Amino acid sequence: MHSQQSGRRRFLKSGAALAGWAVGAVRSVSGQAPAGSEPPAALAGSEASSRDYGVRSGFETSGRLTHIQAWVANVGPPVAPALRTPLQDSVGIITPAPLHYVVDHGSPTPGIDPRQHSLLIHGLVDRPLLFTLDELKRLPAVSRIHFLACAGNSYLPLEQRQNAKTVQETHGWTSCSEWTGVPLSLLLQEVGVQKGGTWIQAEGAEIRKLASSIPMAKALDDVLVAYGQNGEAIRPEQGYPLRLIVPGFEGIRNVKWLRRIKVVDRPYMMKYEGTIYTNLRPDGTARWFQLELETNSVITSPSGEQRLPGPGFHEITGLAWSGGGAIRRVEVSTDGGRTWKDAQLQAPVLAKAHTRFRFPWNWDGKEAVLQSRSTNEWGEVQPTKAALERMWGVTPDYWLTTTNRIQHFNAIQPWKVTSDGRVHNVIWET
Amino acid sequence: MHSQQSGRRRFLKSGAALAGWAVGAVRSVSGQAPAGSEPPAALAGSEASSRDYGVRSGFETSGRLTHIQAWVANVGPPVAPALRTPLQDSVGIITPAPLHYVVDHGSPTPGIDPRQHSLLIHGLVDRPLLFTLDELKRLPAVSRIHFLACAGNSYLPLEQRQNAKTVQETHGWTSCSEWTGVPLSLLLQEVGVQKGGTWIQAEGAEIRKLASSIPMAKALDDVLVAYGQNGEAIRPEQGYPLRLIVPGFEGIRNVKWLRRIKVVDRPYMMKYEGTIYTNLRPDGTARWFQLELETNSVITSPSGEQRLPGPGFHEITGLAWSGGGAIRRVEVSTDGGRTWKDAQLQAPVLAKAHTRFRFPWNWDGKEAVLQSRSTNEWGEVQPTKAALERMWGVTPDYWLTTTNRIQHFNAIQPWKVTSDGRVHNVIWET
Repeated sequence: MHSQQSGRRRFLKSGAALAGWAVGAVRSVSGQAPAGSEPPAALAGSEASSRDYGVRSGFETSGRLTHIQAWVANVGPPVAPALRTPLQDSVGIITPAPLHYVVDHGSPTPGIDPRQHSLLIHGLVDRPLLFTLDELKRLPAVSRIHFLACAGNSYLPLEQRQNAKTVQETHGWTSCSEWTGVPLSLLLQEVGVQKGGTWIQAEGAEIRKLASSIPMAKALDDVLVAYGQNGEAIRPEQGYPLRLIVPGFEGIRNVKWLRRIKVVDRPYMMKYEGTIYTNLRPDGTARWFQLELETNSVITSPSGEQRLPGPGFHEITGLAWSGGGAIRRVEVSTDGGRTWKDAQLQAPVLAKAHTRFRFPWNWDGKEAVLQSRSTNEWGEVQPTKAALERMWGVTPDYWLTTTNRIQHFNAIQPWKVTSDGRVHNVIWET
Repeated sequence: MHSQQSGRRRFLKSGAALAGWAVGAVRSVSGQAPAGSEPPAALAGSEASSRDYGVRSGFETSGRLTHIQAWVANVGPPVAPALRTPLQDSVGIITPAPLHYVVDHGSPTPGIDPRQHSLLIHGLVDRPLLFTLDELKRLPAVSRIHFLACAGNSYLPLEQRQNAKTVQETHGWTSCSEWTGVPLSLLLQEVGVQKGGTWIQAEGAEIRKLASSIPMAKALDDVLVAYGQNGEAIRPEQGYPLRLIVPGFEGIRNVKWLRRIKVVDRPYMMKYEGTIYTNLRPDGTARWFQLELETNSVITSPSGEQRLPGPGFHEITGLAWSGGGAIRRVEVSTDGGRTWKDAQLQAPVLAKAHTRFRFPWNWDGKEAVLQSRSTNEWGEVQPTKAALERMWGVTPDYWLTTTNRIQHFNAIQPWKVTSDGRVHNVIWET
């Protein structure tokens, strides 16, 4: 096996394709048979038998549980785990369904029989209607690639905040899927919204019957009553068999296990709408119904707790997203924010979807701070933490002492690479 | 449960949104609590414990094994199953990795340890190089959504052909994923292709070491050395940990378990290149190296063996794809081919990717034949079976008697809906 063949000549390459970039670890060989030429073992046991519905390699261990969850379980009260996507392992823009983030507000995932499930649309409507799954699936549908993100993503409770080391722990409450379903606007036209019907309440079927308020203008815009995710049925954790997809709005608005939509005349302060999903300011006032998510981005590789094998070329890559439409620009700084250069946005760049950016970097082996900064199609620029401090009227110490829940925290994320190649989260040190 | 409440008033709806379309089965209700208001049972057992890497609902049974595979196992010699994607259940354009089609030419899926795997590039090059997975992942990468399709898709051996009832059985050897990897052009620039290096041979690590020949012009165009599929590592059945993705070319060119690329001066007639992956004509001549796949499409719903619950509105939907670039147009006929109307193409429409089309249809309850016809960006139009007969110089009987393997069969697929709502494959009856 070549991994033991340490004597092979290594060389630095400066060919046409990577002009100016050092490829540090590519080995030259002289035409002999490749390493690993012995036939690999066949898949064993459950892998070989999973022909009907395939499984991943047993060598792959990327998962949603993080050291923070273990840490909270050890020191805090038992909590229903809020599972984070392992963004450090992500490639492309699609999140595999088994790795999609989960925030369930304490309700166990319901095991809904789709034949027993229906969606009621009622309230200020001319014709209340009840739709079964089969009825919904006959109607005109649409598929769109959209991200979801928890409004509390990247801002954890105080005791967890400073233990967030990886990008999974800092930003793992965002994922991106291809959602398929019926436009809510079509269903609302079918029931006939009455004058004065300016908001909707959407309610799930889980034990706590979590409900969210959404303005009618948004409901008639791009909201989907979705039954499909990444080409198959929505997963139970994501709302099987029906989920409201409210593109660009806070994750909690995307009601899972959707069973009821009521057309109403105003927001009715559903559970959490007046409490933890508000944004409490230092002066004691709070911002309510801040529904749309800001422009955001994070470098996923290299990121916290990863280790660069050595100097030379490394592609910096990450994800950007905005509730306000498409990402227009992502800039990357490798010198702690002194200079910024445009990253390449990978096509297709879709509205309210994760956008993958890539940036070539030749690491000289010295300490470096890597950051990304996104701009959305409306020209909104992702702020630094210092800019957020100015906006909030707080000192840097604020973040280290407040126990307030902070929603919509979209500060630029700095990763420090030390000379040993290790990568560290330094956002709370600046 | 509402499914037992048969006394509810049903009504036909002709509102603004579905103007002119009858919604046959939507129930009107009078504002009472929705059916299914009892708390659903929590997920049990393995589903509840799969927090790290999620699982689908136990109510979902869509799978890759078909009645043809059972039929072949019962009457024919034992064969390695060539698994088909259940297109009848597909939504959107992404195929979930566990449902991606598999054609493995008899080799068991190797269980490769990625730490022991490498890619050798040698032959007519200045600097043969050996890349580990970690080395490849440091290099500039790209993600693209591309379909794969077996060249033999929709044309089975004679005894299976007439038993192909569902769209999974007729067209299930095509799937679509977001692939992530390093452009092969970059690696070829690194090794330095010598004068006369006009083809490559790509070889897999499975027991049979299947290899394929690809022209250098294609290798330098859009080919990827891919390690990612739909946001995670490529699945073992799809080539874990490395697969050559050759967009738009026959599936077999997309070499799985990729371990070696040799730059050569001509195609060397690798296994199958001179035999079953040729296209034998009635006059005994065969077409070789017909690498690029034609423009194609199929209606996935309604499709064979499905049953419409009754007259009224049904959305007709399906997939179109072309190895020659993007799909520009899909037309649908609901009257056996007498008239054709444009279907709506769902954005994004991507080159060499599945394109979802949708077409509104109000079924009057009478017998109907549904067909789709695609046109690609070069203006190539999907042919009828009759047009293929003219091109091949054969009579309609030819298809029912030949035991030839037919590759690149992209005829328009007709589905007959009988007055009882059942849907039948009638391509061999026309």
